[in-house]
Amino acid sequence: MKIAILGTGTVAQTLANVLSTLGYPLMLGTRQVTDTLHRKSFADWHQQNQSINIGNFEEAAAFGDCIINALQGHATLSVLKQIPKASLDHKVMIDIANPLDFSHGFPPCLIEGLHNTHSLGEAIQQLLPDTFVVKTLNTMWCGLMVNPQLINDGNHINYICGNDDSAKQRVLKLLNAFGWKNENILDLGDISNARGTESTLLLWTRIYAATKSGAFNMNIVK
Amino acid sequence: MKIAILGTGTVAQTLANVLSTLGYPLMLGTRQVTDTLHRKSFADWHQQNQSINIGNFEEAAAFGDCIINALQGHATLSVLKQIPKASLDHKVMIDIANPLDFSHGFPPCLIEGLHNTHSLGEAIQQLLPDTFVVKTLNTMWCGLMVNPQLINDGNHINYICGNDDSAKQRVLKLLNAFGWKNENILDLGDISNARGTESTLLLWTRIYAATKSGAFNMNIVK
Repeated sequence: MKIAILGTGTVAQTLANVLSTLGYPLMLGTRQVTDTLHRKSFADWHQQNQSINIGNFEEAAAFGDCIINALQGHATLSVLKQIPKASLDHKVMIDIANPLDFSHGFPPCLIEGLHNTHSLGEAIQQLLPDTFVVKTLNTMWCGLMVNPQLINDGNHINYICGNDDSAKQRVLKLLNAFGWKNENILDLGDISNARGTESTLLLWTRIYAATKSGAFNMNIVK
Repeated sequence: MKIAILGTGTVAQTLANVLSTLGYPLMLGTRQVTDTLHRKSFADWHQQNQSINIGNFEEAAAFGDCIINALQGHATLSVLKQIPKASLDHKVMIDIANPLDFSHGFPPCLIEGLHNTHSLGEAIQQLLPDTFVVKTLNTMWCGLMVNPQLINDGNHINYICGNDDSAKQRVLKLLNAFGWKNENILDLGDISNARGTESTLLLWTRIYAATKSGAFNMNIVK
């Protein structure tokens, strides 16, 4: 399965490192390849990871059988609108982004119109009705997304939601490859449940502020 | 310390049972005492707990040194507006309510205007600037609020926030009396952090739907 990652920031880099190690053919997608290669925070990383391909958004989407949205929430919809729909149709899109609005400072709020009765996950699904959007991994620091074993023997919670069961099954296999155990992945149902997982950022960012660390996750205890 | 509980539903009854057992002088507050005493779900409980006083909202507020808001979120502000401010001034108000809107079915959303960039906790504090509002216990099922030992040896998370540190210290002592260990109570800071804890209901209700049980809570694992 060829994977495209939309985005070139820390989250995208973290995912790329692990997916590359796991042997997945990979391409990172960005707005302007030349600009990105000249951005120091990316160039330093790419120097150490020269085998990882980078293309523009359209090239990356065309390359991937599975697309990971690791863009910032506020940029996601405008980027997806510029990609030819045919490059995204009938593919699985793993949406790990959150609709964060930092315009009022920290902690952020969620982007107006994309919370409470709507969500970024749903907005992507509405924009791309023939793509199988699966929301997962968006409730934690990226270091834990791809390496749950970092804390508590890997026992902490990850949520998954999406309208298509077979797409969720395919994503589940990728999560397993990251080290996620099935008993720690809770299927909440259809993509509207992204309202629940995205809203947790309003608490996550406050726990981060109170504890001065992002290397935590939640566990459901019964 | 005399405690008034605003509300007579399941949450209020659960709190009253434990506070009564712990020896706190107690009064439940309701809109119309006679109506409440004739409501079967309350009458059955009161039959078993006849020593627990019930008064109207005004009487209860005047009685309590500490007021617990166990009203439904949508009723809270209108009830508080009808209570003479002098009965609430300089008192601690423990707000355990959530601004849930069930008008579109289950899972609920949050009440318009009381989420993301605002919260019920903040709205109460704005309405009652001379009352010390402390938000806590609103992220879990009421059975766990007063008996955290029910699951995982009591090791799961409760948040507290509010503008006044000494008020939070007083509430902390009450939480300790319920069985909450200090290491499981995370102080998020001022009352604006109620935005974080109230928003978790968007996820809590979905976990409840997916797992068919409310007898769970979250733990922060590191």
